[in-house]
Amino acid sequence: MSQKNYLDHNCPIAQAMAILGGQWTLLIARDLMNGINKFDNIQRSLKISRNLLTQRLQQMEQHGLTKKVVPSGFKRAIYIPTQKCHDLINTLLALSEWSEKWMPDPNGPRISVKSPKSGKRLQLALLTTDKVEKYAQKDINISYVSS
Amino acid sequence: MSQKNYLDHNCPIAQAMAILGGQWTLLIARDLMNGINKFDNIQRSLKISRNLLTQRLQQMEQHGLTKKVVPSGFKRAIYIPTQKCHDLINTLLALSEWSEKWMPDPNGPRISVKSPKSGKRLQLALLTTDKVEKYAQKDINISYVSS
Repeated sequence: MSQKNYLDHNCPIAQAMAILGGQWTLLIARDLMNGINKFDNIQRSLKISRNLLTQRLQQMEQHGLTKKVVPSGFKRAIYIPTQKCHDLINTLLALSEWSEKWMPDPNGPRISVKSPKSGKRLQLALLTTDKVEKYAQKDINISYVSS
Repeated sequence: MSQKNYLDHNCPIAQAMAILGGQWTLLIARDLMNGINKFDNIQRSLKISRNLLTQRLQQMEQHGLTKKVVPSGFKRAIYIPTQKCHDLINTLLALSEWSEKWMPDPNGPRISVKSPKSGKRLQLALLTTDKVEKYAQKDINISYVSS
């Protein structure tokens, strides 16, 4: 229902929210991209009910964000993030940068995004497309700083 | 309740979702930043109930995203986006870029982000902080392309 309402709008932000607006979806994407891909581990990470997590993972599979796979020799499934899921990285980083600016933790930044080569801190910026090819960092190193 | 759950996590993405995860909040921010700042106009834009919009605008005011102001000589309030709201631009653009890549409209892009000076198309990229100062575009021109 709510999804249908979003889809009434031919706006890319609304269309994204139709898929990503469900509670916890973006944090599940964060965990999948972070290598947390077993049901029990995602559940422990998010502290949400098994029912809700099952429902969200099914929705995310329907929307092409993850694939449920049972590796040969294993009993339990793992959830692999697709390219569509990995492409949410800028959304997650934009949300992080906004949080760190407006609601910083007294113990310092909770996430660190760096170039693996130079170790320099990275941030999102708007560039003309020709400059993107020249200057954008493709390899990035994200670490969560526990506080 | 749901907000409390997000706030249990000391993760900047979770903290952002505690404020932005309510349905329509990001689209209200989009409208405010786009100069749509009267209640009736936002309601017409989003096609949501007056009750829901009232509730969301109150929440957004509590979270410092908008200020409700009655201009002198006017009867009706307008909603002014704060800097905290304007700083959601990268989040909105990241969502737009993701949508345009993965769910493009057959009639072409629905949003165009350009440099007002050069007219060149802009996109988000990760840069080292020293390059941000040199190459990032601060003035941007966003237009919605009706289809």
